[in-house]
Amino acid sequence: MREDLDYERIIMGIDPGTNVMGYGLLGINGKKLTPIVMGVITLNKFESHYLRLSRIFERVTGLIEQYLPDELAIEAPFYGKNVQSMLKLGRAQGVAMAAALARDIPITEYAPLKVKQVVTGNGGASKEQVANMLCYILKIGKDKLPSLLDATDALAVALTHYYEGQKPSAGTSAKSWEQFIKQNPNRLAKR
Amino acid sequence: MREDLDYERIIMGIDPGTNVMGYGLLGINGKKLTPIVMGVITLNKFESHYLRLSRIFERVTGLIEQYLPDELAIEAPFYGKNVQSMLKLGRAQGVAMAAALARDIPITEYAPLKVKQVVTGNGGASKEQVANMLCYILKIGKDKLPSLLDATDALAVALTHYYEGQKPSAGTSAKSWEQFIKQNPNRLAKR
Repeated sequence: MREDLDYERIIMGIDPGTNVMGYGLLGINGKKLTPIVMGVITLNKFESHYLRLSRIFERVTGLIEQYLPDELAIEAPFYGKNVQSMLKLGRAQGVAMAAALARDIPITEYAPLKVKQVVTGNGGASKEQVANMLCYILKIGKDKLPSLLDATDALAVALTHYYEGQKPSAGTSAKSWEQFIKQNPNRLAKR
Repeated sequence: MREDLDYERIIMGIDPGTNVMGYGLLGINGKKLTPIVMGVITLNKFESHYLRLSRIFERVTGLIEQYLPDELAIEAPFYGKNVQSMLKLGRAQGVAMAAALARDIPITEYAPLKVKQVVTGNGGASKEQVANMLCYILKIGKDKLPSLLDATDALAVALTHYYEGQKPSAGTSAKSWEQFIKQNPNRLAKR
């Protein structure tokens, strides 16, 4: 057992895309927040759409098995350029969600604007500004930042979920998906 | 063990939607085709989008475990009314695909027009015409038809996959997803 996984609560954040999927795991002990790991799953090396979906499912499942997160927070844009790209994005989100649903891990979605707003106070912030604020809040040395900003975006979603969960509207820890839904009917809506 | 599962090959067809998902399993022995089961997964009783996705994943996984299909054929429209509905459809397709990808079951997609064309010879055929032709080809008594046409649509996709697989372009039986891809690079494209 790795000592660094000894957290009261672990939130997994993902930023699913069809070319790159970012992920970040946030450990919580009381008010102490620890970035456990962040990284990207590169998908554009696969030509086949199915191989990309398959890789997303495998990797998200693998991360869940390795880090045992209690909750999943997804960055999810609700509109896009065209129906084709939205179908592909929906599939990528769907397989990532399936990996969590298969283990009864509750899912919450956050719009990109919401994440930027919560982390930086400005819904129009750039990815770089989000990454900088993340370093400040989580005391990450900037030299430790991954080169791809999709990873920091994913950790930012996990952080957003932590802050949002601190609000009185959200319930206390829920052991199962059913219980979570009963306790948090309002958390099922898109934000 | 159920005697009716003693087939050389089983194709699972699904017609994924966000309100109703149809499924149908086709057993093949030589040139003999047998409809094993068809039905629908009703989703509109669930208000939450996540519960719907969770149900799709559970049910498709359950069908795969029960009938052990060799291949999955999905009816997949590639365009829709708006980006919102396409995102939701993409998610529904994604979780259904994840259930198959988790077990290395190769997936092939067919556009609705293709299914109608292959089964009835007319790309503009109605769902009723598809169902009628299906009854004729598979010798199903019309009294045995499910009331919801999404189920016959799903079996029609499985039948389409069988006919398309008879073409010289498709390979022979592939034991794994990787092997299947090597043997059938052309089957990864949308049809």
